[in-house]
Amino acid sequence: MLSRIRSFIKEHNLLDINGGIVLVGLSGGADSVSLLDVLCKLGYDCVALHCNFHLRGEESERDESFAREFAKRKKVPYFAIDFQTASFAEKNKLSIEMAARQLRYDWFEEMCKKLNAQAVAVAHHRDDSIETLLMNLMRGSGIRGLVGIRPKNGYVVRPLLCVSRADIQDWLGQIGQTYVTDSTNFSDEYTRNYIRLRVLPSMEQLNPAVRVTLARSAMHLSAAEEIYLSVLEKARKELWKGNSLSIPQLLAYPASETILYEMLRPYGFSRQVVSSLFMCLGRESGKSFYSPLGWRVIKDRDCLLIDKDGKTEETMEFKKDQLFKIQSDFPIKCQLIQYNEHFRF
Amino acid sequence: MLSRIRSFIKEHNLLDINGGIVLVGLSGGADSVSLLDVLCKLGYDCVALHCNFHLRGEESERDESFAREFAKRKKVPYFAIDFQTASFAEKNKLSIEMAARQLRYDWFEEMCKKLNAQAVAVAHHRDDSIETLLMNLMRGSGIRGLVGIRPKNGYVVRPLLCVSRADIQDWLGQIGQTYVTDSTNFSDEYTRNYIRLRVLPSMEQLNPAVRVTLARSAMHLSAAEEIYLSVLEKARKELWKGNSLSIPQLLAYPASETILYEMLRPYGFSRQVVSSLFMCLGRESGKSFYSPLGWRVIKDRDCLLIDKDGKTEETMEFKKDQLFKIQSDFPIKCQLIQYNEHFRF
Repeated sequence: MLSRIRSFIKEHNLLDINGGIVLVGLSGGADSVSLLDVLCKLGYDCVALHCNFHLRGEESERDESFAREFAKRKKVPYFAIDFQTASFAEKNKLSIEMAARQLRYDWFEEMCKKLNAQAVAVAHHRDDSIETLLMNLMRGSGIRGLVGIRPKNGYVVRPLLCVSRADIQDWLGQIGQTYVTDSTNFSDEYTRNYIRLRVLPSMEQLNPAVRVTLARSAMHLSAAEEIYLSVLEKARKELWKGNSLSIPQLLAYPASETILYEMLRPYGFSRQVVSSLFMCLGRESGKSFYSPLGWRVIKDRDCLLIDKDGKTEETMEFKKDQLFKIQSDFPIKCQLIQYNEHFRF
Repeated sequence: MLSRIRSFIKEHNLLDINGGIVLVGLSGGADSVSLLDVLCKLGYDCVALHCNFHLRGEESERDESFAREFAKRKKVPYFAIDFQTASFAEKNKLSIEMAARQLRYDWFEEMCKKLNAQAVAVAHHRDDSIETLLMNLMRGSGIRGLVGIRPKNGYVVRPLLCVSRADIQDWLGQIGQTYVTDSTNFSDEYTRNYIRLRVLPSMEQLNPAVRVTLARSAMHLSAAEEIYLSVLEKARKELWKGNSLSIPQLLAYPASETILYEMLRPYGFSRQVVSSLFMCLGRESGKSFYSPLGWRVIKDRDCLLIDKDGKTEETMEFKKDQLFKIQSDFPIKCQLIQYNEHFRF
């Protein structure tokens, strides 16, 4: 395990042994306990960071004292923070999961600057990556969702992506190290657990090495995505002149409908609206299309003009466990902003 | 069903109602029976083509007479051909599946030219496409294997890709049309059936619309693949000067290791060999790499030189149901040329 992780860190250029301190996200769960243990053994100068999200009462306190004790035993500096996750989520209209993620990564970034650290290491492993791939595939995601979890993303590095959940459990068994139940998964937990306990085992019946091959697919897609993003970057530079996008230049691109979608996505245009817009490119001028963020695209002769129209669609929020009956003389558009298992049409 | 298929044909520009005759592959199974029925009802000038692969004895004859009778009832010209698939496969060292595919498509192409047809329509539907996607994902395929089945590929078109297996069964029930059990799936059948009967239903438990979302993922990947292939095409033109490939120009590409793999793949170089080669790019010159097809790549100062070396690796074939025990003082490389469920290391 140590040598595999050492090679992986080197191959992906994640950390430098002489590059200064490494912050390690430490929840107290099996994955993060292994991560801190391994990085210490590999000779990195670690500092442990623990987030207390105060979402599970007593259990949150138990996790925090476990993490503190473990860091102390590893002789590693330890910092902890308390988040009022539930109220932050409500205030910012985020799901609990998104709120926790934002609070966590914001603090990590802040600590990274404050302590002048080379990176923050987090404990995602290969099975997390595969589960994410399958979850996104089953949601109809495009290439960006199908590349698994990245080894490096800005200041965040993931040295355990080369090992599996089973490898981590084995390692902890070998060194006789205990851990607490990880409490960092929130609303995705149902989907993720189902994939872990039902979908993946059914695939393994057919191909016992399926986790390895899925990880290989993700890696290949990641290379394809890099190429895809480089073309988008080029398109962004070539196609736009101020607020005008050249239609003939757009149509010279491969998969030009997708390129158009990617160009308009930052303004809140959906695939569906872009698809209608794309069909109008060869037709007469003057037609307008609106995004829910208040942007308008007008088809001019040989270009598309984009401006801020101010019109936004009215939205109505459906809360958990409420049943709605809607009557209207007008067509109503329902958009699923956040899906969970309680949602039914 | 009729209108959906009509729109799909139009959207993907598959067939032209005034474009001349359409050949239709007719096995006699539910899918191809529906296809011929639908295309006739949509007003296309159809001709039925039946392949008898002589692989299932009596059943092959039953299928052939069913197809002939059905074509006759639809008042559609009918051609059949007999293939000695098993002996063709043995002679050309192909799997039965590959042999049948090659014989079938070669004959389709020949008939397309002979009858001056606009295209050959085959009966793959959305579930075939999704099963192929999952099968390839589980094999660790790259983006090319994850785009599902294409609506159009040269002279072959697939008008039923917009409908599901269930839609086809419903349609046949509605019009009271019988069919025979399709006998065109061979060695993939075990894998494909497993995915159909176990993997997909387990995914559907989580997301009842998973077939729709998987098809959407495949469509998005297909657009990404188009962009990927266009970059490869550009790389092919830019990087090669005769038998020499420029290293600095290669390294200027995104995902340059993958670009190098794609440039050397036609010469039989594996991902693994290309990966070793890629790691040597910054090092001293003179190192050579060989492909099993007899090609050699030499790292020169700022380029890679490729030539035909003639050396090929010795291979040894393992036949079904044989158990091998190998002792050797030399490292042995095992390559899995064709996988089936009997293979165990």
